[in-house]
Amino acid sequence: MTLKYATKLENPATDYLAHLSIDCVVFGFHDNQLKVLLLKSKYLDEWSLPGGFVMHSETVEQAARRTLEERTGATDIFMQQFRVFSNPERKNPIFQKENMLKANLKMNNFDWLNQRFVSIGFYALVEFSKVDAAPDIYSEECVWKNVDQVGRLMMDHNQILTDALETLRLQLRHQPIGYNLLPNKFTMPELQKLYETILGRELDRRNFQRKILSYKIVKRLPERRTGVAYKAPYLYRFDLEEYNKALREGLSGDW
Amino acid sequence: MTLKYATKLENPATDYLAHLSIDCVVFGFHDNQLKVLLLKSKYLDEWSLPGGFVMHSETVEQAARRTLEERTGATDIFMQQFRVFSNPERKNPIFQKENMLKANLKMNNFDWLNQRFVSIGFYALVEFSKVDAAPDIYSEECVWKNVDQVGRLMMDHNQILTDALETLRLQLRHQPIGYNLLPNKFTMPELQKLYETILGRELDRRNFQRKILSYKIVKRLPERRTGVAYKAPYLYRFDLEEYNKALREGLSGDW
Repeated sequence: MTLKYATKLENPATDYLAHLSIDCVVFGFHDNQLKVLLLKSKYLDEWSLPGGFVMHSETVEQAARRTLEERTGATDIFMQQFRVFSNPERKNPIFQKENMLKANLKMNNFDWLNQRFVSIGFYALVEFSKVDAAPDIYSEECVWKNVDQVGRLMMDHNQILTDALETLRLQLRHQPIGYNLLPNKFTMPELQKLYETILGRELDRRNFQRKILSYKIVKRLPERRTGVAYKAPYLYRFDLEEYNKALREGLSGDW
Repeated sequence: MTLKYATKLENPATDYLAHLSIDCVVFGFHDNQLKVLLLKSKYLDEWSLPGGFVMHSETVEQAARRTLEERTGATDIFMQQFRVFSNPERKNPIFQKENMLKANLKMNNFDWLNQRFVSIGFYALVEFSKVDAAPDIYSEECVWKNVDQVGRLMMDHNQILTDALETLRLQLRHQPIGYNLLPNKFTMPELQKLYETILGRELDRRNFQRKILSYKIVKRLPERRTGVAYKAPYLYRFDLEEYNKALREGLSGDW
């Protein structure tokens, strides 16, 4: 999978649109932590978001989807454009000639790579267990990191992550979330924990349950979580019809 | 003002980033109608949204702002990116060689202009009275049209308009609106009419007033509208501090 991407990058000026890149903020949820997928460069001591370029025959959505499929093996990912990042000084340090020579990278069109890139930011929500994160040939690692332990990222990638997180928090107010982040069946405390993790603060248990149920996007199952020492909590699942309707029309706030 | 833009377009390949354009959906409100700013081409029988390219030294926001200032004379416009449009077949018919020759347009770099353009969509909200709409050298008219009487637009501009309107309607659910569309002082029926016009349906008067007041974004003034035959309605204005807070944090729907 990664090879396909690597091959393509041998003649970038022929294969891709100039000046235009994609950056993907991939969120996952595991062990009650919001995680983000990061790559560690082989050649520079830098961490970055997964990204790529746009082929002449692709839409930007197709480019983002291809980039993520190559990195994660996951198809059918929930992705959304959220902002374009266009500081005139945006250049990828990996593609500076000296770094590419040092790394013995055999690529044509140094100049094409070492230019300004306007980047289209996408965020993606994926079920942690379905992702098989794989580094590309320029990376030595592709790992999940807790969102609050990311550290310094390359270029403006910290800003891109911050903006994606802000978009996600705003989305939480008017659109349902969780279908792409939780397993099929979950307990109310698990769903609440997801919301608390994204928002970065604790919520009142009763209010949360009342609100979520009022939106009709989750259904209580006739089963309880087994193997729990104390009082076994009920399991829920999303009502996909209502969930998708709320995605289109918003949760509430109608006039 | 328009001349500046025209001059710049003589050497587009030197001045602008390849493949990248800006399209602006400029909304105004007048006579209880939601309007959008459109240009009529001099050379083709086509209407289009105002648009432009991105200079090497500009962010996309600066490019959009420059484009709009050149078209409307208005500065300090509320603008927002909302989506990137990237169908691989996107090409501007005005820039096809035969049309440019027919129109006797003296431009270099036909090939640069007649290529695929990925376009970044912005929407803008402007106070109708502050705009002095001006055509550029490629347009014979620059006019406001009612949103529901737009007709067929060039390329994918109908889609861009539809998406902008959808974004605006969604925004109405969780962010305040109106400061950039109404005069400083307005009546509650005028504010309600703005919401109804954007949503395309009638709202209940009492519910609307109760909701708007609960958000604390408007303040009732000790004045009433004068010159009204029947019962004179109170005037309101936006509380900018609360309004801007709600823009950042959302109107409601907090968990």
